[in-house]
Amino acid sequence: MIDQAHIAALTGILGDKGVVTEPRDMAAYQTGARYDEGRAALVLRPETTEEVSAAVGYCVTHGIPLIPQSGNTGLVSGSTPDASGTQAVLSLDRMTQRFDLDLDNRSLRVGAGFRLSDVNQKLERHGLFFPIDLGADPRLGGMLATNTGGSRFLKYGDVRRNTLGIKVVLADGEGTILDHTSELRKNNTGIDWKQLFIGTVGSFGIITECVLNLEPLPKQMATAYLVPASGAHVMPLLRAMEDRLGAYLSAFEGMSKNAVAAALDHVPSLKNPFQGGNVPDYVILAELSRTWDPRAGEQPLDAVLETVLADIWESEDPPLADAFVGPAHEMWALRHALSEGVKHAGKLIAFDLSFRRGDIMAFCDRMKDEMPQTFAEVTICDFGHIGDGGVHFNLVVPRDSAAASDKDFERRLRDWVFAIAVQDFNGSFSAEHAIGRKNQAYYDLYTHQKIKDMAHGLKVITSPGDLGTVSFG
Amino acid sequence: MIDQAHIAALTGILGDKGVVTEPRDMAAYQTGARYDEGRAALVLRPETTEEVSAAVGYCVTHGIPLIPQSGNTGLVSGSTPDASGTQAVLSLDRMTQRFDLDLDNRSLRVGAGFRLSDVNQKLERHGLFFPIDLGADPRLGGMLATNTGGSRFLKYGDVRRNTLGIKVVLADGEGTILDHTSELRKNNTGIDWKQLFIGTVGSFGIITECVLNLEPLPKQMATAYLVPASGAHVMPLLRAMEDRLGAYLSAFEGMSKNAVAAALDHVPSLKNPFQGGNVPDYVILAELSRTWDPRAGEQPLDAVLETVLADIWESEDPPLADAFVGPAHEMWALRHALSEGVKHAGKLIAFDLSFRRGDIMAFCDRMKDEMPQTFAEVTICDFGHIGDGGVHFNLVVPRDSAAASDKDFERRLRDWVFAIAVQDFNGSFSAEHAIGRKNQAYYDLYTHQKIKDMAHGLKVITSPGDLGTVSFG
Repeated sequence: MIDQAHIAALTGILGDKGVVTEPRDMAAYQTGARYDEGRAALVLRPETTEEVSAAVGYCVTHGIPLIPQSGNTGLVSGSTPDASGTQAVLSLDRMTQRFDLDLDNRSLRVGAGFRLSDVNQKLERHGLFFPIDLGADPRLGGMLATNTGGSRFLKYGDVRRNTLGIKVVLADGEGTILDHTSELRKNNTGIDWKQLFIGTVGSFGIITECVLNLEPLPKQMATAYLVPASGAHVMPLLRAMEDRLGAYLSAFEGMSKNAVAAALDHVPSLKNPFQGGNVPDYVILAELSRTWDPRAGEQPLDAVLETVLADIWESEDPPLADAFVGPAHEMWALRHALSEGVKHAGKLIAFDLSFRRGDIMAFCDRMKDEMPQTFAEVTICDFGHIGDGGVHFNLVVPRDSAAASDKDFERRLRDWVFAIAVQDFNGSFSAEHAIGRKNQAYYDLYTHQKIKDMAHGLKVITSPGDLGTVSFG
Repeated sequence: MIDQAHIAALTGILGDKGVVTEPRDMAAYQTGARYDEGRAALVLRPETTEEVSAAVGYCVTHGIPLIPQSGNTGLVSGSTPDASGTQAVLSLDRMTQRFDLDLDNRSLRVGAGFRLSDVNQKLERHGLFFPIDLGADPRLGGMLATNTGGSRFLKYGDVRRNTLGIKVVLADGEGTILDHTSELRKNNTGIDWKQLFIGTVGSFGIITECVLNLEPLPKQMATAYLVPASGAHVMPLLRAMEDRLGAYLSAFEGMSKNAVAAALDHVPSLKNPFQGGNVPDYVILAELSRTWDPRAGEQPLDAVLETVLADIWESEDPPLADAFVGPAHEMWALRHALSEGVKHAGKLIAFDLSFRRGDIMAFCDRMKDEMPQTFAEVTICDFGHIGDGGVHFNLVVPRDSAAASDKDFERRLRDWVFAIAVQDFNGSFSAEHAIGRKNQAYYDLYTHQKIKDMAHGLKVITSPGDLGTVSFG
């Protein structure tokens, strides 16, 4: 338990602003973005890596469990304390001291407490951005700790690909600082230790600073809704677009009829873009982008997209049933409203799956076949990042159904869906949300014992202290 | 020592073709591509992961040191046995059983023994390639183990970025097989263990199979030689190209006058492309590429390049002194001949450095300033991948000089260059060649003790056996 002596000592390290103990002030740090609510013993808000180091060293030495927390926008209970009231939340929200832009290197050395939107706003006037496109607005530390992907993975990759270096505090008695804040793109002089801390949700150390790769900001975009001729035509359509557009293609997002309908029903600002208001069974949002305005003699990008679509129409067994180019803002508005829409459609049970791209539609078909007999109350409202294999497989049950009030229903549903996704399709049970208390049981279930043993050994080597919500070993 | 009983046991595991003991047949496995020559006790040539596992388990149990070897094209003595005659080389050259192409997923599951050129030849008819562009023709296992980068890193990244999964055999008594051959692009369900084996030269395990990301093959290229207005204009030139071309820009290579002159002197097939034969102090080879042929209403790529160069000419303080677009084949022929050229110019002492991009020219300037006083015999013949910060910093001394025959000269020169590159410029002493016996001493010198301790712990957890040429801990 945390007594007054500990609070005094930590206040000595972090100052008055750095230690929060008032329940009212702790509330935001105890509640997650969707599912969870816990109770913290106190909240630590260091401002520098050295303060993190001193606080962590103190807590490890005195057996105080630490929960690192960044933007707290995650969906798997990876950044909030449990109900015990014994854990200290260590928030990164004051770690915004550093913002060193290197234009020649196209890189940014930055404190882990910055929000993604703040970073990109500061970069805009330089024509650069950190190319991870998300619905939420997390802080950088959490983005690294969960290795977020998002809607433009197809072109830019995930956070791992765009991280050049990190600074980490280990949960040992010294609060050891590992400085791997290299600005180098090519550097093969040993183990690439930063990889251990990316995607492991703070269990092996707390990321306090990072060096990010930046990309030139797109100046032109063109978007289209594509209606595939059938589910089996989705992959031929994607391949036709990739062949003809290469690195122009920056998004290829899939939206099921149920997900679109839920958004149109529950988000009043949306217009129904489909002819006669008839939502197709499945729609692709394709986006092209390039980093320059049209030059003399060059077609604007929507004309390029029209040409490519016409070319695909004329191919043998055309994968398209319908297609129309439209304004990017409106087309993305519908895509971004899907998440909000399904939340209002009933009780939401959300899955963040991924597959080999060619397996996505087969998985969805199997679910559509088997769900009615297995979990009759469930409506499937899937959408996802077809271009990179990610599927936000959202399931909705009526709020007034027996299933909605049955405490065990969700667990049975999850067990069944994951078994098919992971065992039958070699898919992932957490594509881009990483691990937290919410899905720890599936890590335990689907991870080979040898891997768990190795992870345990690694934990002992790096951060033996009680750190994070997840146990990997 | 390896006696007849061991040879008989290993032959039992691998068959007659799998065990080589004749000195004549072992020769190619004992000699490196540039520097080294050792002596092997025997050479093991397994054909499957299961054979690797059984052979490794046997060798670890019986204390036989193992040197994994792939294409043996490396330049840091990372894949050949030492002079002791006690080590067994484990070659991947027969690991070519598997070649499973997944067109929908744009990925390839493949045995680690394939050569890069063979892979790309088989992929060509599908319009795909593995986008790592190298002078040498290594096998895949070694490319992963050294995390090669090459000339088109700027657009496609390194091997790490393009590896989706691996299968690894650990050097423990069981020859444990870790199967991480996922085809998934988004998967955040624990530690990304493959990262440990990429770039660590086989010391933590032997990669036997991998899943690679493939990219659409470029159909159009355009290249130009750009002469920067001065060394200080190289970065503004790169930024101007990146701003205007985004993902079109696939290479931005720098060539010093001395390197170009050495190639023109020693490679007779080359034509001197410069006006009046006057080689500029520094030349950039810029390449644009895209994955489609020009469509109706679309400029061919060399016209795009001309337009962009004209636009850069017209900017304030134009970073260009001269520029001309020319045939890609000829322009690359000179670039690819640099390595051969400098080898013939005298005794070559090669460095594979990297820097923040903005530091490259400053480092080269400092070397040009200080080299004459410090090592007067040395001619600097640098070239490199300016777009990603890599510099092949090649130094040449006359073959008949005292320096060429002074055994300690090379060490003193390396100590001095590395000290400036690593300590003063925060650069890397091995950008893309990784570590081997040749540069182990600099790993030892420049790596923090805490990192070495962690690496040692990791070695014990994964592959406690005697494996590889490098000690990381």
